[in-house]
Amino acid sequence: MRLTPAVELEYRCKKLQDYMLEASLDAVIIIQNADLFYFTGTVQKGNLYVPASGQPLFMVRKEVGRARMESGLKEVLPFESIKDIPPILSKYGYGVPQRIGLELDVLPVNFYRRYQELYPNAVFVDATPLIRRVRMIKSKYEIHLLKDAADQVDRVYQRAKEIIAVGMTDLELAAELEYIARKDGHQGLIRMRAFNSELFYAQIFSGTDSAVPGYPDTPLGGMGLNPSFGQGAGLKRIEANEMVIIDFAGCADGYLSDLTRIFSVGQPSELMKKAFDDMLEIQELMTSIVEVGVSWGEIYDRCSAMAVEMGYGDNFMGAKGSQVSFIGHGLGIEIDEYPFIARGFNNMLMETGMVFAFEPKVVFPGEGAVGIENTFYLSNEGLKRLTRSSDELVILV
Amino acid sequence: MRLTPAVELEYRCKKLQDYMLEASLDAVIIIQNADLFYFTGTVQKGNLYVPASGQPLFMVRKEVGRARMESGLKEVLPFESIKDIPPILSKYGYGVPQRIGLELDVLPVNFYRRYQELYPNAVFVDATPLIRRVRMIKSKYEIHLLKDAADQVDRVYQRAKEIIAVGMTDLELAAELEYIARKDGHQGLIRMRAFNSELFYAQIFSGTDSAVPGYPDTPLGGMGLNPSFGQGAGLKRIEANEMVIIDFAGCADGYLSDLTRIFSVGQPSELMKKAFDDMLEIQELMTSIVEVGVSWGEIYDRCSAMAVEMGYGDNFMGAKGSQVSFIGHGLGIEIDEYPFIARGFNNMLMETGMVFAFEPKVVFPGEGAVGIENTFYLSNEGLKRLTRSSDELVILV
Repeated sequence: MRLTPAVELEYRCKKLQDYMLEASLDAVIIIQNADLFYFTGTVQKGNLYVPASGQPLFMVRKEVGRARMESGLKEVLPFESIKDIPPILSKYGYGVPQRIGLELDVLPVNFYRRYQELYPNAVFVDATPLIRRVRMIKSKYEIHLLKDAADQVDRVYQRAKEIIAVGMTDLELAAELEYIARKDGHQGLIRMRAFNSELFYAQIFSGTDSAVPGYPDTPLGGMGLNPSFGQGAGLKRIEANEMVIIDFAGCADGYLSDLTRIFSVGQPSELMKKAFDDMLEIQELMTSIVEVGVSWGEIYDRCSAMAVEMGYGDNFMGAKGSQVSFIGHGLGIEIDEYPFIARGFNNMLMETGMVFAFEPKVVFPGEGAVGIENTFYLSNEGLKRLTRSSDELVILV
Repeated sequence: MRLTPAVELEYRCKKLQDYMLEASLDAVIIIQNADLFYFTGTVQKGNLYVPASGQPLFMVRKEVGRARMESGLKEVLPFESIKDIPPILSKYGYGVPQRIGLELDVLPVNFYRRYQELYPNAVFVDATPLIRRVRMIKSKYEIHLLKDAADQVDRVYQRAKEIIAVGMTDLELAAELEYIARKDGHQGLIRMRAFNSELFYAQIFSGTDSAVPGYPDTPLGGMGLNPSFGQGAGLKRIEANEMVIIDFAGCADGYLSDLTRIFSVGQPSELMKKAFDDMLEIQELMTSIVEVGVSWGEIYDRCSAMAVEMGYGDNFMGAKGSQVSFIGHGLGIEIDEYPFIARGFNNMLMETGMVFAFEPKVVFPGEGAVGIENTFYLSNEGLKRLTRSSDELVILV
């Protein structure tokens, strides 16, 4: 268990304040758990008030004692409700905010209305793009945590090689691997920011089930166990010569890793083997493109174009009609952070310190899916891989 | 895997329309996953448009084919974005809605603003209280699913009796029990509606760790593994003669159960044994109070008063300063449904068909916590228990 160093918190707050200046915001009020963890070092129920300049105020309803223990912030205060905010601000000599940033992509309307009542003359702006920009650049400290998460998922991969067998259900395989990760210190919970997004540890499936599309905004879906959570492992049994896909999110001290590997008991079809090799080539292309200054959209466009050239126009990143418009996604505390290696992001550029998962995948309805996924870090010395498991297709006998 | 019968969906929609009439709503647009599952039988990305009268329209962006397969609704339509809603409505001869219900307790502001742009003259009302009222009365079909979830958590309980041992960490115990539940068909994901609420399978902890308060709106918190997810099992090792608490949520076909049991390797202190027996008495009192027509608040008030009389004013439902204001909660697809057995709900009455967990607990800082939790069903023949594990304190040798 690590506590976020106070200097990390100070630096993060300073960067947010720089962006607030650009956006002419008097204050940002942070409420959502992932953002609270990033800017305070703990997840307690409360509001973090970040003024345009000066100390942030962490106002905590539950548990203020624990927040003081876990947070490196100087000002951790008890409060009962948001009505306490104006008196607290005046006590600190902070002015009445006119332009207030809130996390409007996640904040429910009923909460928003309370802030509107509190400050009826204020203008409320979505602060999430600013917060995303701060969070997308990882510090050395964060890279350490991300490496731990990458090492965890490698242990899951090693275990998968030992246990995958014909006749095992996808659910049994998922249960075994989740168990390994959990004993390794995985917190269980995987945070995903987008509204209505739901994710468990992993999406694990074999053969035809891998090609079943679902509601998640992911290239693969899976049958799942029931229509209430129609994604991931179902009750299909693993057969010989078909692809088994393990797309697993590791988690250490709140930081994520993302890895996909393919296994087969016996030789898979030539079509599937070829498709797998082709996805490795697309990964290779990505590593040759990514550098500081290249746009997220360009990485997407060039890798997509290669997939189309290879003949996968109707299979890449989902079966025809179910294709998603990204190949990669940033990750850290949430699994859908900046950068989005996605269509249309041509004004957003790669920067040193970005961490992202890249997951070229192809889907063949009625047959299965293949692909690869690794977690990468754009360091001062260029692109590095955080996940260290071997890329190869694992053929088991 | 069960598909929700079409007659169930029809009945649910009709009940919602009855409440919409009372609230003078022209339409309710349902977007959130748990509500979508309840009213459509599937969770796909889309909007369910419920008119004041007539067929509901399930407009699906991803995956419409799967929605047609899993949903018993008559009208399942493809759509690209909410801009398609007006032409779809006019095609079905539905008028332009003036008073629209949305799930304002969960809908993020950015989404809300798009509906406002679509219908700039409409009034938007929170539909969640109406939806909650429909969902709080469980059908016979739902009771079957809830019983399956209750049976699952009994298997977890039986396994706990076999494996709890001195020297095991709370995390190891959690990992073992989660593994049992998962292999039993637990979907993993536990849905909780309240903003920023996060829950994994269970809160499992021993001795002093059980008394550590945390951010969740639950009587017990726990250290957890790290400040990013500061609840539930941590790395403390189980010692002799201390209480081990297993608060576990089962899940079958999307429906939940909730059970808490206490274990001890060797004899716990007299204080803790007495407190446990007292919580059983409070459970007994609750079962004698609950009947159709009694208010949720009265159940809370009378049980709380008994705890105070017993001398637990500073310990009941959390340690002093961290006490929660409920003793029970409805559950079904989400773990925080109506009824709330909570302070202040004196105008809300118990009705036939309600299902709720009741969890009297006491916390002694620096020592531990004890309590009991079962899932109950108010049937035509009175209160029944769905969870069937024995209530007794399990003393292991």
